[in-house]
Amino acid sequence: MDDKIYEPLSIETLGARLGNVEAVASKIGPDNSNWDVKEVGDGNLNLVFIVKGELGSVIVKQALPYVRLVGDSWPLPLKRAFFEYHALIRQNERAPGTVPEIYYFDEVQAIIVMEFFAPHVILRHSLMAGKKHHGMANVLGLFCARTLFRGSDLSMDAAKRKADVALFVDSVELCDITETLVFSDPYFDADRNHHTPQLDPVVARLRADIDLKVEAHHLKAKFCNNAETMLHGDFHTGSVMVTEDETKVIDPEFALYGPIGFDVGMLLANFWMAYFAQPGHADSLGARADYQAWILSVIEEVWTVFCVEFSRLWRHERTGILYEKTLFEDQGHDLASEQALGHRLQDIWQDTLGFAGVEIIRRTLSLAHIAENDMIEDEALRADCEARGLELGRHLVVNRKGINSIICANDLARVIGQRNSTLKSGEKQ
Amino acid sequence: MDDKIYEPLSIETLGARLGNVEAVASKIGPDNSNWDVKEVGDGNLNLVFIVKGELGSVIVKQALPYVRLVGDSWPLPLKRAFFEYHALIRQNERAPGTVPEIYYFDEVQAIIVMEFFAPHVILRHSLMAGKKHHGMANVLGLFCARTLFRGSDLSMDAAKRKADVALFVDSVELCDITETLVFSDPYFDADRNHHTPQLDPVVARLRADIDLKVEAHHLKAKFCNNAETMLHGDFHTGSVMVTEDETKVIDPEFALYGPIGFDVGMLLANFWMAYFAQPGHADSLGARADYQAWILSVIEEVWTVFCVEFSRLWRHERTGILYEKTLFEDQGHDLASEQALGHRLQDIWQDTLGFAGVEIIRRTLSLAHIAENDMIEDEALRADCEARGLELGRHLVVNRKGINSIICANDLARVIGQRNSTLKSGEKQ
Repeated sequence: MDDKIYEPLSIETLGARLGNVEAVASKIGPDNSNWDVKEVGDGNLNLVFIVKGELGSVIVKQALPYVRLVGDSWPLPLKRAFFEYHALIRQNERAPGTVPEIYYFDEVQAIIVMEFFAPHVILRHSLMAGKKHHGMANVLGLFCARTLFRGSDLSMDAAKRKADVALFVDSVELCDITETLVFSDPYFDADRNHHTPQLDPVVARLRADIDLKVEAHHLKAKFCNNAETMLHGDFHTGSVMVTEDETKVIDPEFALYGPIGFDVGMLLANFWMAYFAQPGHADSLGARADYQAWILSVIEEVWTVFCVEFSRLWRHERTGILYEKTLFEDQGHDLASEQALGHRLQDIWQDTLGFAGVEIIRRTLSLAHIAENDMIEDEALRADCEARGLELGRHLVVNRKGINSIICANDLARVIGQRNSTLKSGEKQ
Repeated sequence: MDDKIYEPLSIETLGARLGNVEAVASKIGPDNSNWDVKEVGDGNLNLVFIVKGELGSVIVKQALPYVRLVGDSWPLPLKRAFFEYHALIRQNERAPGTVPEIYYFDEVQAIIVMEFFAPHVILRHSLMAGKKHHGMANVLGLFCARTLFRGSDLSMDAAKRKADVALFVDSVELCDITETLVFSDPYFDADRNHHTPQLDPVVARLRADIDLKVEAHHLKAKFCNNAETMLHGDFHTGSVMVTEDETKVIDPEFALYGPIGFDVGMLLANFWMAYFAQPGHADSLGARADYQAWILSVIEEVWTVFCVEFSRLWRHERTGILYEKTLFEDQGHDLASEQALGHRLQDIWQDTLGFAGVEIIRRTLSLAHIAENDMIEDEALRADCEARGLELGRHLVVNRKGINSIICANDLARVIGQRNSTLKSGEKQ
């Protein structure tokens, strides 16, 4: 085998190919013939192996030259492993202990060997099972604030940030996926779209909704042009791993420079969708009411922790070229610094709501849906859960500048979640 | 001489060093011993030569490894010639015939040989002399609309635009000049600042003005992070050359990706400052009243032409990834496209006013001032002209979201220009 030519790993070849890499063998065990290799990639894009040995276990992740979910008809460059590697390094500096430690990276083979989190499970599965996680909202809120603040011109050396913008802007193909699947496909009858049939009348109404389309595209313009900070870029509940009391963040291969509100909005959207999906997973009517309340409390806490930590960092780590302390605090203008912080948080809040709305809509009408809805076998019930999400999503996108607080946003979700189905009463054909 | 080692040109060496370059000699004449070489760089940064021969004349521009205005204590990388070269190529594609044609580029020597515009003069000098230029506003408005629209995600292939973002984001040192001199230095007592002494009380008031400082920094954040399009980056009236009926744009070495409103705002600001400076150049009281009216008419026309052409391009050349025709016009949603255009023009308008205000303030308080004011020998009169500019600038920055139209903005300038001096009546010590 030529190390300079990319070749996908397999269960059979992995031991031989990585056995001589000291940084890997020292984590798993020296005798690679004893390594226990399992392929566990349930994501949409990559090969993922758990490799166990006498010393421990690691994750081996390898990019494939195409989109795994679709097949080799949709090519996707291997360099996404390069972006994931660089994003993980930066996230680990900015929010230590939240993302997997990297043991080894091979750019040509598009392989990252990293820390294996056990017995953690993907949060999305946990949200279907109705399990609560202590401290999770706090970790997620802190992760957002720390990575998003510390990757921006509020904190970084300007030349370093510009170099990072240049590095990540080369991720053209993965950006294109987000630009297309998230911001464009949902708003017309694109080839890769699919939705639950009972939603037909709702979908027709949304696609005729000019205010929605225009606002969604303003958000797309922000996503494409507003390089505020290094984003995770795919920060949904499938990119979070949890135990009862530990929370980790994985899979930043979509990392790019974009607006701060994008990551936060995508995360809140996935919690709101999980909230609306609960009736599809309840053993009996109302059995998930308490769990739904917990999900809303998570949303409130994530946003609140984000704001508190972002404000703390603003006051104590504002070392970048924006709102320099020399011009604010050092001139006795502490109040001006607080005034500017308030404006920025208000902008981030409105962006967050908008991106949350866009995420809900694309996860219902575009290519990639969420397991919480997909696993509801009763199509009418699934459509009902999804329709409630769409209603919230549309409202968030169009009216994001008129929603006062996270309390109001959650109230809105609660009202939409609890009222009679609009699908059953009038629109189901 | 080693071609691989940078060496500044001189009047004596230029002929020998460029004489063998066919692309240059074919424009000037084959016998370089007959070339007539003059150094004419009156700018702040570079060597500029006019070279004449039997066949014609060219401009030879060479970057120096420091800021010429300040000296070698302020180093500045030679690669700015690279950015100017790439910007000129793109501007010439996007607004053909408005910028100098390039004959030759040497990256190591940081030399660009380009078209010599004669008998054109720098517009700023013309504005002091009180000369009018036919068709100028139209050319400038079209130049803004065409370069700014066609360098954005509204028009470009997304991958090409991302490659251009990566290319220009490497211009760290020139960005730093704008970030510092335009957006930060004016708002505190920075080392390189200077201002007309009679402005002391006005300057003290501005530097204590928290609303102004906060808004100026929001505009700085937009400038640093909002990579909407390739800007000229230094689009003032010293970067425009004119005859009675021809208008050209030069010197885009500060080119970068930034917000559309930045170029337009900087240009309008320099016209407004020229408006306020007229009493300092009038032979008798009121002698420049008609010329002042002409300047305001230029401002109105530049903005109007910009809007009309931007709208035309929006309707006919929207081939990028933003507001795709497939999702708008092709769905019968022409109105949605117009709605989105209206929102974007409104955003650009408010940005334009804000950046105009910031430009006026920095050209009065920071390192680089404008000749129209500097040439007024009577310090009290100069301060009065400058104070009127500062008053408009502060208003534009803080109240940019509440100024309805270019008519209103010009009315404001007229009122500020015509009332009694606030300096003389109360504040002069």
